[in-house]
Amino acid sequence: MGSYNVAVVGVGAVGEEMLKVIEERHFPAGKVRVLARTPRTITVNNKQYEVEATTPESFEGVDIALFAGTEGEKGAAVRFADEAISRGAVVIDNGADFRMRADVPLVVPEVNAAAMDDHNGLIANPNCSTAQLVIALKPLHDAARVKRVIISTYQAVSGAGSAAVTELADQNKEIAAGNAAQNKIFPLQIAYNVIPQIGGFDSEGYTSEEMKLVHETRKILGDQEILVTPVVAARVPVNTGHSEAIYVELDRPVSVDEALALWNDFPGVAVWNDSENPKRAYPTPLEAAGSDTTYIGRVRKDLSNPNALVFWIVSDNLRKGAATNAVQIAEALVSRNLLRKK
Amino acid sequence: MGSYNVAVVGVGAVGEEMLKVIEERHFPAGKVRVLARTPRTITVNNKQYEVEATTPESFEGVDIALFAGTEGEKGAAVRFADEAISRGAVVIDNGADFRMRADVPLVVPEVNAAAMDDHNGLIANPNCSTAQLVIALKPLHDAARVKRVIISTYQAVSGAGSAAVTELADQNKEIAAGNAAQNKIFPLQIAYNVIPQIGGFDSEGYTSEEMKLVHETRKILGDQEILVTPVVAARVPVNTGHSEAIYVELDRPVSVDEALALWNDFPGVAVWNDSENPKRAYPTPLEAAGSDTTYIGRVRKDLSNPNALVFWIVSDNLRKGAATNAVQIAEALVSRNLLRKK
Repeated sequence: MGSYNVAVVGVGAVGEEMLKVIEERHFPAGKVRVLARTPRTITVNNKQYEVEATTPESFEGVDIALFAGTEGEKGAAVRFADEAISRGAVVIDNGADFRMRADVPLVVPEVNAAAMDDHNGLIANPNCSTAQLVIALKPLHDAARVKRVIISTYQAVSGAGSAAVTELADQNKEIAAGNAAQNKIFPLQIAYNVIPQIGGFDSEGYTSEEMKLVHETRKILGDQEILVTPVVAARVPVNTGHSEAIYVELDRPVSVDEALALWNDFPGVAVWNDSENPKRAYPTPLEAAGSDTTYIGRVRKDLSNPNALVFWIVSDNLRKGAATNAVQIAEALVSRNLLRKK
Repeated sequence: MGSYNVAVVGVGAVGEEMLKVIEERHFPAGKVRVLARTPRTITVNNKQYEVEATTPESFEGVDIALFAGTEGEKGAAVRFADEAISRGAVVIDNGADFRMRADVPLVVPEVNAAAMDDHNGLIANPNCSTAQLVIALKPLHDAARVKRVIISTYQAVSGAGSAAVTELADQNKEIAAGNAAQNKIFPLQIAYNVIPQIGGFDSEGYTSEEMKLVHETRKILGDQEILVTPVVAARVPVNTGHSEAIYVELDRPVSVDEALALWNDFPGVAVWNDSENPKRAYPTPLEAAGSDTTYIGRVRKDLSNPNALVFWIVSDNLRKGAATNAVQIAEALVSRNLLRKK
């Protein structure tokens, strides 16, 4: 196995996590170029990186370009993906701009790695809340076809970037000191609050975050007949770790034990569902943060629909929801021999 | 209208709120006796109250005894309700001990005040998360029969009492100071976290809080055929105000406009559902706290089931979820001439 020149574009919460994950997972990176709007020196996990301003020429000699996500209104990938691809790189984009394009594979490697095989230079990383959802649904779908998903989310502020994490901490400090809290990133105070809006509203009243759960889930699972009801995607005062409360209707009855066995056999999943063991009764965001695992707990049969299960999942939105999944796509590009310069 | 001697039993978060609400709503109270395990003097809204130790004799001359909720493992009502009733009082119990008993009316006055009419001396107040749910469901149920409710909750810490509010504030302070947070009330740290457990687990894996949503909703709406799926009842780091994400299936299509009109005509409801107006786009717990209203927003048609709606509701768990509803029951006892000593 050779080594591959990597560019990471954008060094907010997700970009920094990408740099960490590349190191941690020992990705066979040759030169790692860090690109962003503003040149500077950053330190991530005690390692210094020189951040260069992104230009078309930045992608000369790059094998894999990891775009961390949005930069301004549209992702940096909108401006630079073609430049990177024309220079021979494969682009992995964590932004939302290309995910639903028919010629762009949208990939969670444990679920649909084969979708990468006929890529055209650009592979999209799903939204954070979708990545953990499809991990939980895939083994159920293979065993008993998912017909309907009804989901509400409890999403961490880091999904809105590093500044949102600072905003929550600052608000908590001001409130502890008896002062009024200021908000800039979120439309309302998030400390001691829940905000039932992530993204803008469409004409039916759904938010963009909610509709991502619908469209991306269908695309990744490769089944346009799955009905997804995103009841509410809500922001909670948690730094890292998205939680999801899920009702899923299958095409036959699946017992709790069968579901647990399916999940235990699936990569990237840990089942914490033991009410007798307080340390493993169920996952919470604090415990999921920093891990690449999707944790599943509170697994029950629905009280009335014999074909339905309910459960609770938690995963680190910056890792499996973004950086880790992107690096796993890079690993799969290597193992499946899908890089353009070999 | 005469005046009525009132006893408030228990002066934690709910009992103090009861004293406030009695004043605010100008309930025609004669003597207000405040009872608890430990005698002391308390100040609520700048008014001093002498708290006496509860004894059977405490209820002599009391017309209405408001029990705030749990005291120890079982509610104080388990020990003292019969003593109060035998002395001529009507007991309004906010605890969970009697709610499901066939001879005990379980009442949200806007929804089922008539259920009080053949009371036997004891009327139960529903659980906080049920009270706001049935307020939202009742006008839909009258118009288009509720067939199925799928709900996840985002519940405030004050539902676990005053000490839980202190615990969250203390944890936020310790974390801001760079220290480890201590937990005593909750099984895990609640600051910067979500805990998907409220109450103990039953043999199917549902919590007591989740099953209250099932049984109490059916009893208050008077329809045992309503299917309720409590996906997860979760605790979030919010002081006051429970939020609920709700999917409801009706027996015919109901448009968003029809639902809004039904809610606008219903007492105790405010619709905040205007995405064009940032101040009224949707309710949040911070904005609902301190109010007696159940706020409804994020109202949409389900994407695939023409008979289903999805929406978001928020209400103050200590007020409509507990103290206000109890005082409203007391008001209804007066107006319906249901007190035992007249």
